[in-house]
Amino acid sequence: MSLISAQTVAEHASSDSCWIIVHGYVYDVTEFLPEHPGGSRIILKYAGKDATEAYDPIHPPDAITTHLPKHKHLGPVDPKTVVKVEKVLSEEEKKRQELVAARPSIDEIVNLHDFEAVAKAILPPKAWAYYSSASDDEITIRENRAAYQRIWFRPRVLRDVSVVNWSTTILGYKSSLPVYISATALGKLGHPDGELNLTRAAGKHGVIQMIPTLASCSFDEIVDAAVPNQTLFLQLYVNRDREITKRYVQHAEKRGVKALFITVDAPQLGRREKDMRMKFVDEGGVAKVQEGDSGVKKDEGVARAISSFIDPSLSWKDIPWFKSITNMHIVLKGVATPADALMAYDYGLSGIVLSNHGGRQLDTARSGVENLIDIVAALKTRGPWPNPRFAIFVDGGVRRASDVLKAIALGASAVGVGRAFMYSFCAYGQEGVEKAFQIFRDELEMNMRLIGARSIDELTPDLVDASGLHAHVGLTPTDNLYNTTYQPLALAQFRTKL
Amino acid sequence: MSLISAQTVAEHASSDSCWIIVHGYVYDVTEFLPEHPGGSRIILKYAGKDATEAYDPIHPPDAITTHLPKHKHLGPVDPKTVVKVEKVLSEEEKKRQELVAARPSIDEIVNLHDFEAVAKAILPPKAWAYYSSASDDEITIRENRAAYQRIWFRPRVLRDVSVVNWSTTILGYKSSLPVYISATALGKLGHPDGELNLTRAAGKHGVIQMIPTLASCSFDEIVDAAVPNQTLFLQLYVNRDREITKRYVQHAEKRGVKALFITVDAPQLGRREKDMRMKFVDEGGVAKVQEGDSGVKKDEGVARAISSFIDPSLSWKDIPWFKSITNMHIVLKGVATPADALMAYDYGLSGIVLSNHGGRQLDTARSGVENLIDIVAALKTRGPWPNPRFAIFVDGGVRRASDVLKAIALGASAVGVGRAFMYSFCAYGQEGVEKAFQIFRDELEMNMRLIGARSIDELTPDLVDASGLHAHVGLTPTDNLYNTTYQPLALAQFRTKL
Amino acid sequence: MSLISAQTVAEHASSDSCWIIVHGYVYDVTEFLPEHPGGSRIILKYAGKDATEAYDPIHPPDAITTHLPKHKHLGPVDPKTVVKVEKVLSEEEKKRQELVAARPSIDEIVNLHDFEAVAKAILPPKAWAYYSSASDDEITIRENRAAYQRIWFRPRVLRDVSVVNWSTTILGYKSSLPVYISATALGKLGHPDGELNLTRAAGKHGVIQMIPTLASCSFDEIVDAAVPNQTLFLQLYVNRDREITKRYVQHAEKRGVKALFITVDAPQLGRREKDMRMKFVDEGGVAKVQEGDSGVKKDEGVARAISSFIDPSLSWKDIPWFKSITNMHIVLKGVATPADALMAYDYGLSGIVLSNHGGRQLDTARSGVENLIDIVAALKTRGPWPNPRFAIFVDGGVRRASDVLKAIALGASAVGVGRAFMYSFCAYGQEGVEKAFQIFRDELEMNMRLIGARSIDELTPDLVDASGLHAHVGLTPTDNLYNTTYQPLALAQFRTKL
Amino acid sequence: MSLISAQTVAEHASSDSCWIIVHGYVYDVTEFLPEHPGGSRIILKYAGKDATEAYDPIHPPDAITTHLPKHKHLGPVDPKTVVKVEKVLSEEEKKRQELVAARPSIDEIVNLHDFEAVAKAILPPKAWAYYSSASDDEITIRENRAAYQRIWFRPRVLRDVSVVNWSTTILGYKSSLPVYISATALGKLGHPDGELNLTRAAGKHGVIQMIPTLASCSFDEIVDAAVPNQTLFLQLYVNRDREITKRYVQHAEKRGVKALFITVDAPQLGRREKDMRMKFVDEGGVAKVQEGDSGVKKDEGVARAISSFIDPSLSWKDIPWFKSITNMHIVLKGVATPADALMAYDYGLSGIVLSNHGGRQLDTARSGVENLIDIVAALKTRGPWPNPRFAIFVDGGVRRASDVLKAIALGASAVGVGRAFMYSFCAYGQEGVEKAFQIFRDELEMNMRLIGARSIDELTPDLVDASGLHAHVGLTPTDNLYNTTYQPLALAQFRTKL
Repeated sequence: MSLISAQTVAEHASSDSCWIIVHGYVYDVTEFLPEHPGGSRIILKYAGKDATEAYDPIHPPDAITTHLPKHKHLGPVDPKTVVKVEKVLSEEEKKRQELVAARPSIDEIVNLHDFEAVAKAILPPKAWAYYSSASDDEITIRENRAAYQRIWFRPRVLRDVSVVNWSTTILGYKSSLPVYISATALGKLGHPDGELNLTRAAGKHGVIQMIPTLASCSFDEIVDAAVPNQTLFLQLYVNRDREITKRYVQHAEKRGVKALFITVDAPQLGRREKDMRMKFVDEGGVAKVQEGDSGVKKDEGVARAISSFIDPSLSWKDIPWFKSITNMHIVLKGVATPADALMAYDYGLSGIVLSNHGGRQLDTARSGVENLIDIVAALKTRGPWPNPRFAIFVDGGVRRASDVLKAIALGASAVGVGRAFMYSFCAYGQEGVEKAFQIFRDELEMNMRLIGARSIDELTPDLVDASGLHAHVGLTPTDNLYNTTYQPLALAQFRTKL
Repeated sequence: MSLISAQTVAEHASSDSCWIIVHGYVYDVTEFLPEHPGGSRIILKYAGKDATEAYDPIHPPDAITTHLPKHKHLGPVDPKTVVKVEKVLSEEEKKRQELVAARPSIDEIVNLHDFEAVAKAILPPKAWAYYSSASDDEITIRENRAAYQRIWFRPRVLRDVSVVNWSTTILGYKSSLPVYISATALGKLGHPDGELNLTRAAGKHGVIQMIPTLASCSFDEIVDAAVPNQTLFLQLYVNRDREITKRYVQHAEKRGVKALFITVDAPQLGRREKDMRMKFVDEGGVAKVQEGDSGVKKDEGVARAISSFIDPSLSWKDIPWFKSITNMHIVLKGVATPADALMAYDYGLSGIVLSNHGGRQLDTARSGVENLIDIVAALKTRGPWPNPRFAIFVDGGVRRASDVLKAIALGASAVGVGRAFMYSFCAYGQEGVEKAFQIFRDELEMNMRLIGARSIDELTPDLVDASGLHAHVGLTPTDNLYNTTYQPLALAQFRTKL
Repeated sequence: MSLISAQTVAEHASSDSCWIIVHGYVYDVTEFLPEHPGGSRIILKYAGKDATEAYDPIHPPDAITTHLPKHKHLGPVDPKTVVKVEKVLSEEEKKRQELVAARPSIDEIVNLHDFEAVAKAILPPKAWAYYSSASDDEITIRENRAAYQRIWFRPRVLRDVSVVNWSTTILGYKSSLPVYISATALGKLGHPDGELNLTRAAGKHGVIQMIPTLASCSFDEIVDAAVPNQTLFLQLYVNRDREITKRYVQHAEKRGVKALFITVDAPQLGRREKDMRMKFVDEGGVAKVQEGDSGVKKDEGVARAISSFIDPSLSWKDIPWFKSITNMHIVLKGVATPADALMAYDYGLSGIVLSNHGGRQLDTARSGVENLIDIVAALKTRGPWPNPRFAIFVDGGVRRASDVLKAIALGASAVGVGRAFMYSFCAYGQEGVEKAFQIFRDELEMNMRLIGARSIDELTPDLVDASGLHAHVGLTPTDNLYNTTYQPLALAQFRTKL
Repeated sequence: MSLISAQTVAEHASSDSCWIIVHGYVYDVTEFLPEHPGGSRIILKYAGKDATEAYDPIHPPDAITTHLPKHKHLGPVDPKTVVKVEKVLSEEEKKRQELVAARPSIDEIVNLHDFEAVAKAILPPKAWAYYSSASDDEITIRENRAAYQRIWFRPRVLRDVSVVNWSTTILGYKSSLPVYISATALGKLGHPDGELNLTRAAGKHGVIQMIPTLASCSFDEIVDAAVPNQTLFLQLYVNRDREITKRYVQHAEKRGVKALFITVDAPQLGRREKDMRMKFVDEGGVAKVQEGDSGVKKDEGVARAISSFIDPSLSWKDIPWFKSITNMHIVLKGVATPADALMAYDYGLSGIVLSNHGGRQLDTARSGVENLIDIVAALKTRGPWPNPRFAIFVDGGVRRASDVLKAIALGASAVGVGRAFMYSFCAYGQEGVEKAFQIFRDELEMNMRLIGARSIDELTPDLVDASGLHAHVGLTPTDNLYNTTYQPLALAQFRTKL
């Protein structure tokens, strides 16, 4: 195949004929323009040019080759003809890179919040907006965290806790932690290796990763990065085109994935205002993706741009079909009510994840750990609990091993952690993820000893006081006039100013 | 009719003979001075001069011609004799106009709060004070908002939500939204077109507007701005002079208004301190209106000045009379208790609005949505609910489509939104109102899908958890000394200052 | 009586012979030194000098003549011999006087908080500390205010409220307000006319004043300032020497006082830290009073210095004695429990005040209005409520007419207001107190109309929702790390900085 | 014994041969290096040098002689050979010393918070971090304080309170206060006399001290500082080597200690992040201790370094052994549940301390005073309460005498106070501790009078309202957008800026 000169490519720079270069290869995307989930405008910006840098963080490498018919793959560009563009760093970007250099040493990271604080400081603003945003008033994302702090421990003492063991099995597969890595999208926005950071760390430490449908890395890249016998699960957004879904699921099963987590709380992606506002900050960047010419609304963020394929018609009627196309465990991710939990049980599924999608979907939805109480009670009507054929997982808001222990004491099998692991690799790559595991181990060891539970099955409901969990308290508005006039007490004063 | 020279007008500049110019026409208001609801002093300030600019935002155009006998309409002023007053902009006003120019693009408005923030920045301080103020300590206005955040969702999953439909009927009339535009007064304080912004946007989008008695635009101006078959309701403050009320109501019915919302929570207008304080900021402006020479107290704001005609003797005894003068639906606006709700039902009315007047009347009154719970329970004692012959509406504090969905799930037929629509036209005129509708549609679509409700009648009580709604929690005062001494945890530190 | 020269006085400037000048008269206080409730040191500071300025704000004018035997009243000082001391104003005092001059016009005062804010700014720091302080962590003083905001209205509509009437009787005596002026001490610290401001305003407006034992004005000065038939009550601290108490009570009865309010919540005066800290700010001022040489502890404030005569042995056994020495109504001020309320009832007293002494005594005591619920319930076991022979009053934290209405709806006969009236005269003298009455009237009129109650006896329990009153909620400590990292949502941004 | 020259010592400055000087004596610690609980690295830093200054605050004086075999005690250093190192004060240290000089006079200390505020300002940062830190998110340490503020008083009146008496017995021993000094570690970090400040003050005032296992002063130093018949208790961390524990306990009994408080809530010491972060501030200081070469994790703080000897296998099985080796009272410190309280009772122990170790161990554990309610209820099933053979103590969060009274009213025998006494000597040495006792006495006197309880046994449950104690309330996340837009009410404005 002969090389194509960059000059030739540059001649195809309009919607009538639109060529782009991705990873040194030229593609004719003219006919694909109207089908691009992110709208045609964002592609046209790169018409006749190299689009690799914009393409990479939000597409798996094979996205273009998979979606574009073979005859539109025009051939490699002639590297000699490509003019090296001198990249000028913006002031903001320079400052960001200084911050990267000034990061705290990884030894100084003592809890999971630290990763998030580092990531917040060093991520490009759009990546931070995409990752950290949640829907509407972001009530639910914060409630997810707050809910754990309404559960208190009632620790037992004088049990011999010289040896404590927090390893467990998740859907029958060994896990060194009672925690799995939950799916989060677009990992390359935060680190060039994206989700592979998780896969490699997980393989090394015996942790289970749930591969996201919307990963920046391709499914196969991720699976290839796994060590032999590393357990992987798959998170699934169901495509309007069921054939695509079927191929994807069956390919995953063939590659050894053990369980399918079908997302059921996202028939449409939530309005995430931090993400939406980003587009107005910089009209030319990642967040611009969403500006389609038709159909896709102008004011949507990255999230919606990449998710238009998701099928809002997905319903219980589809469940038997899933059971017919795979033998993997099927778990519903995003269940919130006893009624739906019982449906999942009665459909013969393997479990459910009590999740509100990290607060990114329905705002003022209750937290997973709160729903856990009612749902465990409902499932007990189907037989003794825990039930070996049905697992409940919880995700959202977990930052401490103590959160994990509380959820398990209340009936969960294991807990999913998404953002915290993602921030750990945004901050320190694979080493960050391994440090995050270490923090979980340290905290698990300490807390299990202090609670008096030596193994996961000793985590029983009597160890926690969840009586305040259902109290959704918003304050009576305060009396500003009184508070303005009231003079708070002061302490004894030093003779000089402190 | 011969022209009157401005010089002649200027000779009538005292309480003995007081002429004013409004919209190029000269009026002799000498005898009207003691009857002016806003007091005589404010008129005397313009005695012998052009009063148009002060007159416009707080009177409908026809107020003066309606209230003044014909022979006091002296004739047009001779425009050649009017000295153009060079208007000097204050620094404050210049700054305000710069802010108007710097408003965010309407595309950047992503929620209803944004309108309010823009309006707050660009409105003249007196307009902002009048609109935003509420009574006493403004506890209730804030509780109205807070109450919705004590209601949480319990969403259902795996229902086919490809099509969701939020259109409904309100008192039998089609509405494209489960929301109507509630009455708010003095729209021209915030935009030269005043309430017409609402009428035009509502007509275009199939939304129902409730016309306020205290509109800046005249009733007929508003009705004239409607498209054919546009549904309009009327909010009524009942006049001490029942004949005026009768004429007003019957005129409205003749002009096609479909329902009469009688305000029952305002026998006297509330003390709104932000509004009251305004008078001390500028002794010469709008807020000065209230300084009557007698009867009207010196320290009252715009609100009371314009409302002295309202009849505090209004009682249940008047209800049969209303039924005798009109065939429109009659709805009581401002009901708060099961007892009064049952009275309304038993009097054969069409419905009630659970309202506390946007927090502008009785402070520390409970929110409408909280009262909804008890009142629906009470009405169930009269037969199955929903009841086709009786509707409950709720207003106050609504800022999100999710609020609307919560109220409907708890038994409301539709929800009234006042300030949010008003701020939308203060910020961007009619286009602002249309954008507000669009935001409601976007949020309704998303939230209905995420809740698993495909139509208004699928919004059932099981979808919400309102168990915390009745918790009126004010905090135990804090231990300031302890809090001063306690050093909060810090995160890992960067090597350079962030 | 011959005049004494200032030089002669100056020779008696030690504890061996200590003369002082008060109001132009010379007294030999040598033998009184050890008995001075405020300690001898503070007197010795003025030994041989004119002590009038320090004496005045904390003693009734006749204190010295009453407590000192006649032969120690040496005679008038020769005014010609007194060297006029050029008073140098401190910078702080100059600033304070500028503030006094810059006070808001009294027309701008729209609520009772405004008085407090003005007083806070213009009072000498020690007076502010004495008045505003409460005991320990000042939890109770703030809870007193907060409790009212946990009571919500359930207003009735469509009652004819053209006429509303808030006058009532208190212990059978007419009162133009359902509010009486509660006793507060040392009024001259805040205004030269001290408690007379209250007496004069009360007389003019038909309000009942409770005279404090610790007034700066003498009892007779206050009674003399009353108009004919003005109702006065008396607050009583019971002296260790019962004869003094007996004389005081019988004198009061003779002078026409109608009721005796015996303080029972102050066997010892509370530790009020703001007051205590004052002494370290200025070693030479009012707060220094407390430095006694013996017995009185060094670190006590004004409060304790002036209260050492109070008898901690006072008990139920004394009640019959009180009934034997007076025919006035006897009311216990400071009752907090149903048990004690029933005791008071069974002893045949006329009523109780549910009070915690404005938060100045036992800290973390519950508020009076909270105790009201249980106590009314308990008294109902003795017969129907309201009971014509026994009244319950409530004080503490009242700032709004709506507070008054809530307490009455829950069963109180009337409400005591102390600090708010005191601040009103500190800020504007008698005119301030009259304005405070006016604010009560305005707010009572508005709120009674809006609640639907036309007279005091229409204030029934169904009009309020006190279900949250007993909720003493302190928050779970917050997750500082999460909150530090969480980035709050922002609104749409203007193109220029606001 | 001949003197060793400093030069000779300096030759032994590696892990092959490591000599150090402590208090003028040379020790060969080469073989001890791997056994040092704080890791070998911290010792190697002083290899060949004088280590006294680093040694002192975290070891009892006899630690080195006790743990090192006799033949490694090489002999005294020749003082003439020791080069005086000119100590250069850091800027930070200079500032700290200026603050020490500017401390408030002890007369100005009016409550226990004041001590903490002074200590916070003048302690070296590492000492403050060690003392003030608690585990994880420091939720429990703050909850300990907050819990007391959810308990309210219901005071009785008209009891003769001329004499009130707060003395009591604790495990049968007289105590002038219903408070004992609880064990806190490493007192010399805050004051050169360390725990002796407590012993001396306690002896003088008849207060009972609990000697900590981890005191900076040796056990015998402390006992030697006691006056005759001064009651002392002992806090015990149980050593993996039970022989060491046995010797320690039996030695204590022989020296007259009356009760053994076995810590059961610390099988492993908590992760205290303030302490952990300290190590990164200064790589060369106290906090560095924890950097062991093996086993001890790099990121642990002072706390863990000094506690590695504690036995995590301690269990109920060990209780009979303790009873066999001592006749002292045995009390379990750190019980949290009714189940464990009953176990302790049934094992025949003398009591329990409801403690969460000052929030330093299991975070989000409930407070001791909250657990008290359930535990007293459980113990009542074993017979009438109070039970003369079993005592319940509570510690954590006590700062006011009112806290003490609340705990006793709810069933505790006495209350332990740790940090507050420690801060009192950090701030003012022994005099600080005595002042702290005085504050307790003043507050006890006042509060007992105001509650109407004349002696400890009159503190009955009816005097408190603990109905809100179990309410663990975390707030619904707030609506930031609404709050940003809402404009709080303002007070009347002065004509000039305040």
